[in-house]
Amino acid sequence: TWKGAPEISGTGGWSFKPRGRLQYDAGIVNAPDSTGRDDGFGNDIRRARLGIAGDMPGGFGYKFEIDVANSDLAVTDAIISYEAGDLEIMVGQFNNFQSLEELTSSLHTTFIERAAYTDAFNFIRRVGVGVQYGSGDVLLQGGVFTDNMDRLSNDAWSANGRVVYMPKIGDSQLHLGATVNYREVDPGSTVRYRQRPLVAFTGERFINTGNFAADSEFSYGVEGAFISGPFHAAAEGYWRQVNRPMALADPTFFGGYAEVGYFLTKGDTRGYKGGKFDRTKPTNPVGEGGTGSVQINARYDRLDLSDNGVIGGTQDGFFLSLIWKPTDWVLFLANYGRLEYDQAVFPAAGGDTSYGVDVVGVRAQIDF
Amino acid sequence: TWKGAPEISGTGGWSFKPRGRLQYDAGIVNAPDSTGRDDGFGNDIRRARLGIAGDMPGGFGYKFEIDVANSDLAVTDAIISYEAGDLEIMVGQFNNFQSLEELTSSLHTTFIERAAYTDAFNFIRRVGVGVQYGSGDVLLQGGVFTDNMDRLSNDAWSANGRVVYMPKIGDSQLHLGATVNYREVDPGSTVRYRQRPLVAFTGERFINTGNFAADSEFSYGVEGAFISGPFHAAAEGYWRQVNRPMALADPTFFGGYAEVGYFLTKGDTRGYKGGKFDRTKPTNPVGEGGTGSVQINARYDRLDLSDNGVIGGTQDGFFLSLIWKPTDWVLFLANYGRLEYDQAVFPAAGGDTSYGVDVVGVRAQIDF
Amino acid sequence: TWKGAPEISGTGGWSFKPRGRLQYDAGIVNAPDSTGRDDGFGNDIRRARLGIAGDMPGGFGYKFEIDVANSDLAVTDAIISYEAGDLEIMVGQFNNFQSLEELTSSLHTTFIERAAYTDAFNFIRRVGVGVQYGSGDVLLQGGVFTDNMDRLSNDAWSANGRVVYMPKIGDSQLHLGATVNYREVDPGSTVRYRQRPLVAFTGERFINTGNFAADSEFSYGVEGAFISGPFHAAAEGYWRQVNRPMALADPTFFGGYAEVGYFLTKGDTRGYKGGKFDRTKPTNPVGEGGTGSVQINARYDRLDLSDNGVIGGTQDGFFLSLIWKPTDWVLFLANYGRLEYDQAVFPAAGGDTSYGVDVVGVRAQIDF
Repeated sequence: TWKGAPEISGTGGWSFKPRGRLQYDAGIVNAPDSTGRDDGFGNDIRRARLGIAGDMPGGFGYKFEIDVANSDLAVTDAIISYEAGDLEIMVGQFNNFQSLEELTSSLHTTFIERAAYTDAFNFIRRVGVGVQYGSGDVLLQGGVFTDNMDRLSNDAWSANGRVVYMPKIGDSQLHLGATVNYREVDPGSTVRYRQRPLVAFTGERFINTGNFAADSEFSYGVEGAFISGPFHAAAEGYWRQVNRPMALADPTFFGGYAEVGYFLTKGDTRGYKGGKFDRTKPTNPVGEGGTGSVQINARYDRLDLSDNGVIGGTQDGFFLSLIWKPTDWVLFLANYGRLEYDQAVFPAAGGDTSYGVDVVGVRAQIDF
Repeated sequence: TWKGAPEISGTGGWSFKPRGRLQYDAGIVNAPDSTGRDDGFGNDIRRARLGIAGDMPGGFGYKFEIDVANSDLAVTDAIISYEAGDLEIMVGQFNNFQSLEELTSSLHTTFIERAAYTDAFNFIRRVGVGVQYGSGDVLLQGGVFTDNMDRLSNDAWSANGRVVYMPKIGDSQLHLGATVNYREVDPGSTVRYRQRPLVAFTGERFINTGNFAADSEFSYGVEGAFISGPFHAAAEGYWRQVNRPMALADPTFFGGYAEVGYFLTKGDTRGYKGGKFDRTKPTNPVGEGGTGSVQINARYDRLDLSDNGVIGGTQDGFFLSLIWKPTDWVLFLANYGRLEYDQAVFPAAGGDTSYGVDVVGVRAQIDF
Repeated sequence: TWKGAPEISGTGGWSFKPRGRLQYDAGIVNAPDSTGRDDGFGNDIRRARLGIAGDMPGGFGYKFEIDVANSDLAVTDAIISYEAGDLEIMVGQFNNFQSLEELTSSLHTTFIERAAYTDAFNFIRRVGVGVQYGSGDVLLQGGVFTDNMDRLSNDAWSANGRVVYMPKIGDSQLHLGATVNYREVDPGSTVRYRQRPLVAFTGERFINTGNFAADSEFSYGVEGAFISGPFHAAAEGYWRQVNRPMALADPTFFGGYAEVGYFLTKGDTRGYKGGKFDRTKPTNPVGEGGTGSVQINARYDRLDLSDNGVIGGTQDGFFLSLIWKPTDWVLFLANYGRLEYDQAVFPAAGGDTSYGVDVVGVRAQIDF
């Protein structure tokens, strides 16, 4: 079978599939000149990944992938798994169980970057043990983790869980979910929450708490999504409460978004599988007489990093995207974004910290 | 054919096989509190490797593998090979010809880490040229090397050789071997020999010569092993004589071990092939109605880094391990170790340098 | 099909092929003792690459490769491509369209390193967009680039184009080409042009402009080659004009070479395809009763880095090489070189900067 690359299968439960993805981004960031920021044209090899996934007799499996974008090495997934009926156990490094947006592959998101809070709140893959139980319309996930292997810790740890209810209602797909996360940071270390204006090819962040001492983080989030034919909607909210040492007040930060999308091409719908969005497969792809799928999306994205004595600023994003998928494995995306800031960390003329930044980003993507 | 991953073969001598391994370790180190060492829980992605091996018409072949554990890149094997009858010539980076324990793949060792001396004496892959002649029960190996490509040198060099006699005696396998190694270090550089207490997820080393000036190393070792049905035994001794500049006395350090192991599951035996231990293949694997293989092992492991004016300390290790292999390609290991030190580098209460450290380590492993 | 590694193909335009190469170099550099340079034996893992290339339905394709020689990670090609008839569009990182010698794979060059100017003038892969049109005997190539992803820039950019005329004249192959390149460097940065004496395993460079301020580079080159049975000849010339800031004079540097080669083995010829040299495929390879192909080559290689107030020196290289390819995928090369310097950057006895350096290099290579 071809899934971008060939998937080789054998009797007794064997399978083997190479994996890879390339994303090249370019675009423009336009900030008020008086902020003195380095804006204008930008470009980036956003992701350049190679990996392998496979299954073995006895219910065992693995997924192992590296990212080498910009010639920096990072291991993404490094998973040893075991499946028995509805239950799956995972050991290694993988995405923690929080947020529909985070768990949806970067190949299948509707905007050039995920919602601002996922990056701001440092959602990353971590090393640990996870358990997943999925039966019918219900999915339960939980795990205990140390940290990303790039900075593997013997002291920091976190535990999180997620529950999803995902019934089919007629031909429509409903998704409701909730997550909770507790994390103890390395003793004596600090945390920092910040975010770029939508695109990854700029190094400027207009919203930033700076480093501050913390003992632990307690977070919870809610997820909702709906797919019906060419239409989909999704919304999430996520709260992070930071426990600061001694008598310091504990701030609670917030991030969330709401989006709608629509396919202009007949017969196309957004993919969904196993509690997250999945691959869009154009009904009439290029190469078979068609033109692929064309989808338009709009999103409001909020991030509030100011609370209880920490002034990180707020960011309100208004985004439009146009996605063309000529085939299942190739994607072109154009994204416009308007970011409105309050209490931004870079003052504009006259010390003004309330202003807007405009962003345009385009992406070319292939995966296998 | 499936060997974890598919091996693709073609007429005329073609073959091609992807390779990979994931090992996740966790456990506990417990040292005397008065040493002030950072002990307790630890964890580590021990190995995360991806590679390719293949054969070509004309007798040529290659093996090429990278390790990306903890997002650090290291090339392990990078070999161009040529085989003609009993003779094999290798160019590139590969394991030097010393020690049964070192040459046995980390997938097939009986304890969570190899014998203390292999790491203490800096056994690493080096770039060079090797020749191997194997006929019947005899194996001859020799090579000339510069250094690991991570720190490739145009000045340091080493030469080593190994001879193995490996007759079958009835159904039993005997292994006898000897190695000799000479190495000139980079002019003006130093050497250091040290070792962790069994597990790799701690950064503490209780035995350590520190850096000292050296011109060259002369080393020799003996190997013995025996496999008979569910039982195996193995023992090695290795001596390293360090030639120090000027009139300084030349110390000789020693490392060695003796182990026995036994399979509790019926029909299982330890793999052996080509002068080293090989893959254990459970007779009744999980997925075919069985429970896999269960093996218990005990080892005494000695490392003596004190001689002729260099006081690095001595370490006596007493180890027990339990290995469960549900299938050929999946392994779970639990290891307990007691390390007894003399002349340890970290003094305990009252300046005492003779004390013990306890270690527990577990591993989850998959390879293909 | 086997192309070193298996190429897997499927209906509808699918194909998938793993790629890799290993090159191990060693040899000797001999410079005048009075220069005080670190010469003598040297060795190097020159290239150690792993990658994947594939085609997809609809005309899309990808090529993605990393180099891990000496355990340093670099991405080489990272290309998303689209082909429609004679036209091909590429996005990502790839070789810019300049120089027959640079565009010919390092697997298929006739000497251990490419012509001195290709490295001296910093020909590297860059991130951008390229278009290629090939019809009959004519090839047109053009692209716009930022920089290598190792140091991806949002300010530097370059544009270049190449035209090739490559008619078959009877059984002979003619190649005529021309390239032009314009590049703006990062504002406020410098450029430096320098080169080693032929081999990459030495760190010494006897010709070197040092860093100097520059705004932009304007370059142009001409290419010529001819293949007729066992014989081939090739020659190129390349001029780089550096625009310095303010009233500083603008130097123009030059590099070029002329070579001839001949196969001693019957029936062998140098490969050529798509505007560059391609794989030599021995008519009678080892493994099929033959001895492979043997080729001898001679080259004159010139690099002039002194002009208009910049004194980088000149280098005249006289090279001989002997290449044995036992099979299509394995190569052994021996290279002798004599480098004559004027205005060398390291003075010899009495301040003399005109002297010669001798070099011997050998290579073992396998690829798939």
